[in-house]
Amino acid sequence: MTKYEKGANAERELLKTLWALGFSVVRTAGSGKTSLPSPDIVALNRSKKLAFECKAWNANYLNIPVGQMEEQLEWCERAGAEMIVAWKVLRQGFLFLRPADFVKTGKSYAITLKKARSCAINLNVVLGLQSKLNI
Amino acid sequence: MTKYEKGANAERELLKTLWALGFSVVRTAGSGKTSLPSPDIVALNRSKKLAFECKAWNANYLNIPVGQMEEQLEWCERAGAEMIVAWKVLRQGFLFLRPADFVKTGKSYAITLKKARSCAINLNVVLGLQSKLNI
Repeated sequence: MTKYEKGANAERELLKTLWALGFSVVRTAGSGKTSLPSPDIVALNRSKKLAFECKAWNANYLNIPVGQMEEQLEWCERAGAEMIVAWKVLRQGFLFLRPADFVKTGKSYAITLKKARSCAINLNVVLGLQSKLNI
Repeated sequence: MTKYEKGANAERELLKTLWALGFSVVRTAGSGKTSLPSPDIVALNRSKKLAFECKAWNANYLNIPVGQMEEQLEWCERAGAEMIVAWKVLRQGFLFLRPADFVKTGKSYAITLKKARSCAINLNVVLGLQSKLNI
């Protein structure tokens, strides 16, 4: 499976989950001829606007180029939406992260897998279906 | 230019206009392997959620299949979004229509070009940038 296919499969999996949890969802078209920024997935319900950046990346860290992160943050600011990075880790599922969990390191915003595991938010909390974790 | 290209060009034109008017926008990917319904364009600002179905159709009427219209309306209901049909008419620009302007006729929701011209809403009104037309 190519890297593109892995990414596309991860996006479809997340779309189905979000739909099943009551959200209306769209998977966005590749930028193509428009140069406008946009997230990979937009999910809406009557009270939440969420913009997901999906990454299927099997490594001990995740880097997002500074320009890409900042364009997404601008998109969310105009939309009044929350940005969530959905990092799909092989055989471990998704880690849902907030931009503030990343550290700016030169040309990228970066996070280690170890930190991501400790910061990751439960999907029900991301979606506003549960206010905090029941531990 | 094929019908597909006309449709895609109309969508890109609308995306750029919406972005210039302060909305965050996404053009949605073809349904492909997901069978989930979705509109052609989603546009968000801090107070509005809009879902556009775009049609580039040069005829004296516009038909939208019943299943397609009802899926879009369900998408909007879950999202708390307004659905707008953006009918691009050759050399006349976009006519922005509400689902209620259409009449259910057998397998389709239909509207004539004449009625569409009289029902069409100014884009600034659609976007909530102007509360009513200044005549």
